Amino acid sequence: MTPDAINRLVAQLAKLPGVGEKTAQRLAFHVLRAPPEFAKSLASALNEVVDKVRLCAKCFSLHDGPSDVLCGFCTDTRRDDRVLCVVEGISDEMAIERTREFKGRYHVLHGVLSPLEGIGPDQLRIRELVSRLSESPVEEIIVATNPDVEGEATALYLTRLLKPIGLRVSRLAQGIPMGGDLEYADQATLARALSARRDL
Amino acid sequence: MTPDAINRLVAQLAKLPGVGEKTAQRLAFHVLRAPPEFAKSLASALNEVVDKVRLCAKCFSLHDGPSDVLCGFCTDTRRDDRVLCVVEGISDEMAIERTREFKGRYHVLHGVLSPLEGIGPDQLRIRELVSRLSESPVEEIIVATNPDVEGEATALYLTRLLKPIGLRVSRLAQGIPMGGDLEYADQATLARALSARRDL
Repeated sequence: MTPDAINRLVAQLAKLPGVGEKTAQRLAFHVLRAPPEFAKSLASALNEVVDKVRLCAKCFSLHDGPSDVLCGFCTDTRRDDRVLCVVEGISDEMAIERTREFKGRYHVLHGVLSPLEGIGPDQLRIRELVSRLSESPVEEIIVATNPDVEGEATALYLTRLLKPIGLRVSRLAQGIPMGGDLEYADQATLARALSARRDL
Repeated sequence: MTPDAINRLVAQLAKLPGVGEKTAQRLAFHVLRAPPEFAKSLASALNEVVDKVRLCAKCFSLHDGPSDVLCGFCTDTRRDDRVLCVVEGISDEMAIERTREFKGRYHVLHGVLSPLEGIGPDQLRIRELVSRLSESPVEEIIVATNPDVEGEATALYLTRLLKPIGLRVSRLAQGIPMGGDLEYADQATLARALSARRDL
């Protein structure tokens, strides 16, 4: 008895991650109760994002210029060409950018090595990374993949690939997070923090 | 540095209930990773829902025909004209409909009496309810508002309004939910279940 238009909206919303049938229904009713401009502007934002947002041809970040133009990170002349930060995805890039501590360039792999899921070096933007290095004055590569099994494996792969070229390859420090509590730190993190201890 | 198109989508998604900035960002990236058809069909479902879905002129349920046509509940000739179920909103109507136990007609108030929020009888579809009754053979009104303060107040108001007309006015039974546990039932529910106990 529910109108088809609502059922279709609920079905589409339920495809979003973390949104089940019930939440989708709640969201759909919210859309119906809100002024029609809300649904209209959400719809046009969705359309705009697929129509305009492209991958940068050099670093594979997202940008919304025409597809042959580079992104803001690659065109910004104030950034340091000598340091390149390799990340798994866009959200990692944004997290690093939010620290305002990094002023080099980025390279987005769009995934990590995961043999079980059939993701090898060819499925990531690794070939593009290597070809980028030949034409730019990069001296250091910061491998900022996540400190989990796949991220570590990807970091190891990249180290073995890039060190022989004569580059400095580094990894984000691992240890107790700021404001963290020794008592509640997991064993692996604490062990890593001990072995990587710094002299004061 | 994030493309404006993405920022706009995140801002729109963050307006949905229960969706904060972080979740909105996660949803936006999901949309970007998914095939473009997903965003397109979500956008068209949103547009369709605001363009097509209207309130039924009689019971104020939602329907997606042209605005002068009645909804499926009102036009279904197999439904019983003598019983009318008054609900707060569409989701309550859908919940009752899912039980497959009710075969009468509906009337959606689109809210409950709430003096603090400035919602009086004139802001609800109560005048329309009364004028509906004069032209249909309704014998019983089931007031299915929620068993909270505002829902109870609305039920009381409707009872005082409709009983003098000579209608039977009833309310959904309150008590321990099916599969519930006496030990964990709140005092008010248990007290209500006791006082409304049934002879076997």
